[in-house]
Amino acid sequence: MTTDLREVGVSVVRKDGLAKVTGAAEYLDDLTIPNAAVAALVRSPYAHARIVRIDGTPAAATPGVLAVITTDDLGEIGARRFGSYTKDQPVLARGVVRFEGEPVAAVVATDARTARAAAALVDVEYDELACAVDVHAALATGAPLVHETAPPLGRQGRWPAVPGTNICARVVIEQGNVDAGLAEADVVIEQTYTFPRVFHYTLEPHGAVASVASDEVTVWTNTGHPYQLRQELADTFGISLNRIRVVVPYVGGSFGGKSFPKLEPLAAALSWKVGRPVKVLNGVEGSMRTNRRNGATCHVTLGLRRDGTLTAKRCRVLLDTGAYADSGPLVADKASVRMLGPYRVPHYHIDVQAVYTNTTPAGSYRSIGGPQTVWASESIMDEAADAIGMDAVELRLHNLVKRGEPVRPDLRPMDADLGDDLERLAKTMDLTEGGRKTTNPLGRGVGVAIANPAELPISTSIVRLHYDGSVTVLCSTVEVGQGLHTVLAQIAAEELGIDHSLVTVVSPDTRYGPYDWSTGASRGTAIVGSAVQRACRDIKDQLRALAAESAGVPVDGITIGDGSVHVGGRAVEYAQVIREWFGRPAGEVIGRGYVRNLGPSPAFWEIGMGGAEVEVDRETGEVRLRSYTALADVGRAINPQQCEAQDIGAVVMGLGHTLFEEMVYSESGSLLNATMLEYRVPVITDLPETMETVLIENADGTGPFGAKGMGEGGGIPVAPAVANAIARATGVRIRDLPLTPERVWRALRVAGRAAAPSRREASL
Amino acid sequence: MTTDLREVGVSVVRKDGLAKVTGAAEYLDDLTIPNAAVAALVRSPYAHARIVRIDGTPAAATPGVLAVITTDDLGEIGARRFGSYTKDQPVLARGVVRFEGEPVAAVVATDARTARAAAALVDVEYDELACAVDVHAALATGAPLVHETAPPLGRQGRWPAVPGTNICARVVIEQGNVDAGLAEADVVIEQTYTFPRVFHYTLEPHGAVASVASDEVTVWTNTGHPYQLRQELADTFGISLNRIRVVVPYVGGSFGGKSFPKLEPLAAALSWKVGRPVKVLNGVEGSMRTNRRNGATCHVTLGLRRDGTLTAKRCRVLLDTGAYADSGPLVADKASVRMLGPYRVPHYHIDVQAVYTNTTPAGSYRSIGGPQTVWASESIMDEAADAIGMDAVELRLHNLVKRGEPVRPDLRPMDADLGDDLERLAKTMDLTEGGRKTTNPLGRGVGVAIANPAELPISTSIVRLHYDGSVTVLCSTVEVGQGLHTVLAQIAAEELGIDHSLVTVVSPDTRYGPYDWSTGASRGTAIVGSAVQRACRDIKDQLRALAAESAGVPVDGITIGDGSVHVGGRAVEYAQVIREWFGRPAGEVIGRGYVRNLGPSPAFWEIGMGGAEVEVDRETGEVRLRSYTALADVGRAINPQQCEAQDIGAVVMGLGHTLFEEMVYSESGSLLNATMLEYRVPVITDLPETMETVLIENADGTGPFGAKGMGEGGGIPVAPAVANAIARATGVRIRDLPLTPERVWRALRVAGRAAAPSRREASL
Repeated sequence: MTTDLREVGVSVVRKDGLAKVTGAAEYLDDLTIPNAAVAALVRSPYAHARIVRIDGTPAAATPGVLAVITTDDLGEIGARRFGSYTKDQPVLARGVVRFEGEPVAAVVATDARTARAAAALVDVEYDELACAVDVHAALATGAPLVHETAPPLGRQGRWPAVPGTNICARVVIEQGNVDAGLAEADVVIEQTYTFPRVFHYTLEPHGAVASVASDEVTVWTNTGHPYQLRQELADTFGISLNRIRVVVPYVGGSFGGKSFPKLEPLAAALSWKVGRPVKVLNGVEGSMRTNRRNGATCHVTLGLRRDGTLTAKRCRVLLDTGAYADSGPLVADKASVRMLGPYRVPHYHIDVQAVYTNTTPAGSYRSIGGPQTVWASESIMDEAADAIGMDAVELRLHNLVKRGEPVRPDLRPMDADLGDDLERLAKTMDLTEGGRKTTNPLGRGVGVAIANPAELPISTSIVRLHYDGSVTVLCSTVEVGQGLHTVLAQIAAEELGIDHSLVTVVSPDTRYGPYDWSTGASRGTAIVGSAVQRACRDIKDQLRALAAESAGVPVDGITIGDGSVHVGGRAVEYAQVIREWFGRPAGEVIGRGYVRNLGPSPAFWEIGMGGAEVEVDRETGEVRLRSYTALADVGRAINPQQCEAQDIGAVVMGLGHTLFEEMVYSESGSLLNATMLEYRVPVITDLPETMETVLIENADGTGPFGAKGMGEGGGIPVAPAVANAIARATGVRIRDLPLTPERVWRALRVAGRAAAPSRREASL
Repeated sequence: MTTDLREVGVSVVRKDGLAKVTGAAEYLDDLTIPNAAVAALVRSPYAHARIVRIDGTPAAATPGVLAVITTDDLGEIGARRFGSYTKDQPVLARGVVRFEGEPVAAVVATDARTARAAAALVDVEYDELACAVDVHAALATGAPLVHETAPPLGRQGRWPAVPGTNICARVVIEQGNVDAGLAEADVVIEQTYTFPRVFHYTLEPHGAVASVASDEVTVWTNTGHPYQLRQELADTFGISLNRIRVVVPYVGGSFGGKSFPKLEPLAAALSWKVGRPVKVLNGVEGSMRTNRRNGATCHVTLGLRRDGTLTAKRCRVLLDTGAYADSGPLVADKASVRMLGPYRVPHYHIDVQAVYTNTTPAGSYRSIGGPQTVWASESIMDEAADAIGMDAVELRLHNLVKRGEPVRPDLRPMDADLGDDLERLAKTMDLTEGGRKTTNPLGRGVGVAIANPAELPISTSIVRLHYDGSVTVLCSTVEVGQGLHTVLAQIAAEELGIDHSLVTVVSPDTRYGPYDWSTGASRGTAIVGSAVQRACRDIKDQLRALAAESAGVPVDGITIGDGSVHVGGRAVEYAQVIREWFGRPAGEVIGRGYVRNLGPSPAFWEIGMGGAEVEVDRETGEVRLRSYTALADVGRAINPQQCEAQDIGAVVMGLGHTLFEEMVYSESGSLLNATMLEYRVPVITDLPETMETVLIENADGTGPFGAKGMGEGGGIPVAPAVANAIARATGVRIRDLPLTPERVWRALRVAGRAAAPSRREASL
């Protein structure tokens, strides 16, 4: 791609690189908050129980213990609920516990060891209740209710809980008449696909340090959503937004698991109670008991003609959102549109329900609702291709919406060339040799995923141009490792025509940095980047006006280019313009950029596709990836190396839920593998022998210089691509994740004995 | 004063009050900077000496010592000089020491005790040089040169050092022909007045903690000038401004003593050298060896007619600016215009020289150059009145420039009613009874001071209006105790039509908060306040535009009032306007305000007048103040209680140099009273029996709502007012400060023996 860009499209070295490799970068636990006490949490051993009595007396008598705190000690704050979509979660369990590991009491002590030892002395008497550990149990007639009364909506809530049921939120989207559409079909496929409950497994667990003073509530936290958290804390304490300060240092991975409030309201309540800063920090197990991904059961009916034309799609998706809503309702909303996929389907009806269960609360996780639904929708596309004897890539190409074609009435028409992208993927994988040769002895499969059909706009930024020409960018995106500080510096440098080394991007502190919706949804480059770009343009407008005023000439003739202001043929450095206008080497020019919510959103925000080549050991059921190819249609790669690294990282994460990962709950709701040893994630030896990433740059995104989102799309197609490849390699279709050796071996064994029973029978 | 203002003109409770009275407010030494080492300084015992050898070996061998650092260890940084006006000061002495107490080496250790103990082990061999301990010695023929070569100008420097002399800077202002003017006079008075070298004595001594990382230099400091310091640090390290971060917590008093760089370049250099944060903190004695006020010798010749009309004024002012320039050149500049005073003088010639001596460097101190020169100019006014037999108040009224009258060609015409102010002061003091009865048995005197004929503009601010209608103000004024956080919140609240409780003003952090020239020169309310007011107006302009866009109506018909936007007769809350435009309860409106340097400055920025009533014990020489009346023409008292407290504080501080304070140096340049015990400051029992403050509010200032500067004017007239009162009470004129019992007693004794010799003979 040839451009006249100088700072963008270049793999400049990460701004945070040196600090991170030298260990100088500070994460939450590295911060020294003076006089901070430490809290240890007393967690429920039951998945559902009434709290009869809490005796904190022996714990409170331990030297070094400052307080043993239960909900009753927190007054109104104890009675309040937080939750951005559904206000259902107390800072400490109140009367009832709804999942194993729910915090029931907190012991605040001068140090962590004392707090933990004393927490073990807190005696809680429970009255165990029947529990609903999965969505089927939760939706069964007479199921125990996780919440006896339907909780109210949160500030962002749009999808109410259904009273008298465990339905936390329900989203239905539809078009046409599905029955009629299915009647038009030559072939109807109906299958159920399940996706496990999995854990984000960020390197850094959740944590928060809070300090509540008379005039300000300060929370240092590793959240990805400083501003959403600010609102929740303002609600918790009943004070205005200017009195809440959320400070976010470097964050060791979020992947959505640190979106929305987690431990912060509790930390703040404890600080308020004990009158000094309080730190609450999870270990890995604590974080596994704090948040996870929504598990899913996707029942899909797909109708198509013999020529490959899709006629109708009916889906029922049950999301296991655990004991508290977190962002479950939003996951349901996004799952509904992701379930539809990037295909032309005249008739569809998609019904998604987020279901409360007595398990770990589930929320956002790298493409919310994406991997779960695409697992189903891309698996069934291969099954459908087989059913009509058509090449699977060909079937997709036949149905993909084209550029400019409407996708849904409330979204902008398709703004990418998906067919070209898929052809490119197939060509890269060498699938085109001999004409769509998608089946081979090794097993090659292709999954296509198109992610995040939502812009999630609203971002603001402040860019400060100093009087020496250097720049500070204030925005509130969190550097969770995604490299956004570097990318934003490149965007600002490109827009201003200066070198990126002159640009500093600072970490969020809501006291100073301006509003941002969230760090998530692959929105940073395009949305925050746009806010930064607009602030830079605002600076350029001002520079022109200042130069005009200083020179006493009309602003019309003044232009900006190459990092200078051009006044009547004379190039004046920015620094000089500032100094001349302010009258001294002093002052600065402050630019602001706003990105607001202007519908309709683009149809597909981020485009990722992937294809896998596998080897299956029929003796052990082990699946080895020979190669994996990821394609990302990024519009513009601001920093190509970072884009590639993001895509590779997403693929590896996708391998986790594809091959290994599952949070296993007992029938009584006990999480059985809440340790680093027992919860299996991909390690370096699990990686494909070869990995290739393809970046498509058509400069057709809505972000700066044509950039789109990226970083989530890579992980979404992994599971169906691998399962499709296994089916081609072995003739056996597996519809439940993860594809562990045991599961694959059993499936091969069943297939070897007889025709495989329909998955529908097996799973229902 | 009746107004329609609601938030301004009200003595709202200080924003920082609760935090300060509860001890929650954090000052520099309260900050916990993780992993910070502590430096102890090895200071020179000589006022002027060549450094022959420094042996740090025994100190370096002390357990816990990280490094013993001298200039030779600092490479280029050791060779560089800092100084905003004159680049003359090294971070550690290099080759030569120029004052007793100059840092020669630093011992950096894990804790303060170890550092101090090891510092005592550093063995420095000196070769003592002849020294110049006062301005007369320094200007004598053949005087030892404090700086062998004239140092170069700093970034703000305009007044070069004179090579081959100890003249650090020289400022001459003149008009007309003084000789001709004196020839027109009926009476010519010629006298010399001296003003001591005094110490600021802030409750909190100087300190800095620095952390030098690869990408950023961070300094936490109690400076009053975060942005000037940022520039000096950028110069010291040779990096751009975006890579310097200066953080200023609450400061325990500055009074100018914390203006400009002090320990910060040294702390940063040490951190750079040892690779971890380093803290340098003065005790009281350390601060007395760091900065003080310029002493002054003012030789004044004043000519006037019998009717009281001034004809000419010739002044030669020698400022003792110590071993390094600091802000001495600026003090000289300001002294020149302050020496002229608020009187109509057709012919004048004022020559001010800042002179290097081998004593503590001197810099800014609450009205730079003001008390020193006004001590002379207001004393001589009383002497002149006596000489022509005119009432001293009458003489002043006769010569004060009137509103609209030009003062100097480069300044705006007089913008206050000084005559009214003086009449008001005289009336308040009951001096008008029986017609200008300025003499009475108790001794009443009146001094008039008009301070700070300079705006010191250039300020920027960012005001953030959150989507709930609350506000955060980012500006970089330091809360040194002057109450500016409260006043700026009131200004923002008034401009936006909201309650001040909804406004938070944050402390400076150059990483986030926008540029400000300095915290000093009584500029905060008017200059920073204007920047804040403009940012609020910018917000209102935006709110109108956003509301127009949302409503689809022209912006012209939209108004703002009472904290709401009025759209077609409908009042819409700010919060709602933001939410509607952004499309969600999210976003914020970011206002910016710039104040630039637009000449000419107002003639008199801040107006303070004072009058004293004294009792003199002729047996002991002790002077007791029966009453003191301070008048401040503030334009508009944003917070009247704070204005009164500022004025009272200034008067008490003025009593220090008037009655007690003087840094006493031996002939060899040794500071003899560098302890809290030996350096006498006013205590509560020294206060006048009654103190009255009068605030004049004509809303004629250039600041928000007509405010002017205030807070320095109160201290300036104290010395001449007291001395004039003593002269009236005793008939004895004293022209040297402080008016200690010994000095008063000696003067009374001499007067009792004979006609007092002319002061000129006594002092020269």
